[in-house]
Amino acid sequence: MTSPVTLINVFAVPQGKEAEFIKTWNETGQSLKNASGFIDAKLHRSLDPNARFQFINVAHWESVEAYQVAISEHEPQEKHLSWLEVNPALYIVEAEY
Amino acid sequence: MTSPVTLINVFAVPQGKEAEFIKTWNETGQSLKNASGFIDAKLHRSLDPNARFQFINVAHWESVEAYQVAISEHEPQEKHLSWLEVNPALYIVEAEY
Repeated sequence: MTSPVTLINVFAVPQGKEAEFIKTWNETGQSLKNASGFIDAKLHRSLDPNARFQFINVAHWESVEAYQVAISEHEPQEKHLSWLEVNPALYIVEAEY
Repeated sequence: MTSPVTLINVFAVPQGKEAEFIKTWNETGQSLKNASGFIDAKLHRSLDPNARFQFINVAHWESVEAYQVAISEHEPQEKHLSWLEVNPALYIVEAEY
């Protein structure tokens, strides 16, 4: 598929681990931002610290292939955080207003 | 808070209920799109039908207050779908690339 896709990663971060998570996410961002086909990434933080998913990354890539090559070459550092729940998936827009 | 916020709603939809969910989400979208302070909304659908969260709405509102008034006046119809898991929360951007 060569059309743009959205990578959304829904994170559950234990209380007290937020700073370490943000630091790690930024390390990944620094390495991925120059990858071929990368468009943008926004790490969202919930206003309510008790929200089930306190952090959600919404990123855009030029294609599925570009994303897959990039994460094979630049392994996301969050994988090494044993306490972190990650739910990454690729999405397309079904409906919009 | 009068700065723009992002409403992200992470849905878990049982297999076979996708069409009914999309129809219901669109009904809510039709009523909310004219609400004061509404900016935009995108319903994302996962490329992998087995993804844990097959649908994620990412919407933007001019303020927390605008969002809260709108959903008190236009109750989201998804609330009536007993089989639907919803995880709505308001977010700000923590970091971006």
